[in-house]
Amino acid sequence: MKRLNIQIIFDRQPGRIGPGKVRLLELLAETGSIAAAARAMSMSYRQAWLLLDEINGLYDNALYETQHGGQGRGGATLTDLGRQVVGEYRGFEAQCLALLDQQFPQLALPQRRARSGSTSESAGGH
Amino acid sequence: MKRLNIQIIFDRQPGRIGPGKVRLLELLAETGSIAAAARAMSMSYRQAWLLLDEINGLYDNALYETQHGGQGRGGATLTDLGRQVVGEYRGFEAQCLALLDQQFPQLALPQRRARSGSTSESAGGH
Repeated sequence: MKRLNIQIIFDRQPGRIGPGKVRLLELLAETGSIAAAARAMSMSYRQAWLLLDEINGLYDNALYETQHGGQGRGGATLTDLGRQVVGEYRGFEAQCLALLDQQFPQLALPQRRARSGSTSESAGGH
Repeated sequence: MKRLNIQIIFDRQPGRIGPGKVRLLELLAETGSIAAAARAMSMSYRQAWLLLDEINGLYDNALYETQHGGQGRGGATLTDLGRQVVGEYRGFEAQCLALLDQQFPQLALPQRRARSGSTSESAGGH
């Protein structure tokens, strides 16, 4: 019914983490390959590599590791830190969505007034 | 140091609310005019009007009201609902940021490891 698109924007580093980079890391973990993850997101290998490089630049330790193949496009896996960042992002997203539903009724359900104002006679009557 | 860019995306209505539309509503309240709010965001009157129309479409009641001027560009004010939506968005944003800092350390402070690993001798020591 609704979802969030949350970007975390760092001013100092600088850089940002959002659903695109997180999804790319997830796909990298699922496919074991930067090229396959890029394809799954309909982006070029170079584009995916630049996104991964940007997110890696936010951290002192790598979020993923590559095993060098013939053309430098061998397998890739997330590091413990990479898995932790992805897990935290998804947890953060879920908790924000719960917070929205629990505490911000107008923002969460903009058409609530329409429903409360409409009759319910047509539903389940005898 | 860091900030969030949160879009709430509704699948049914359809539409979305994010920092751009919320800022436009705030500027409309501050300036009392769609044209002035548009200028403050470096967008055309038409662009601002389309954004306002889109957010109004999410609700059954208006978020702002206009007083008709000579060319339909008279003053504009937020309705109670408009003020409520803006207030909830800013409250939601602040609570998400607090949640991030409190519960998601890697996501909140990607370079934390660097700081804890560096020496603090240079700061104020003798």
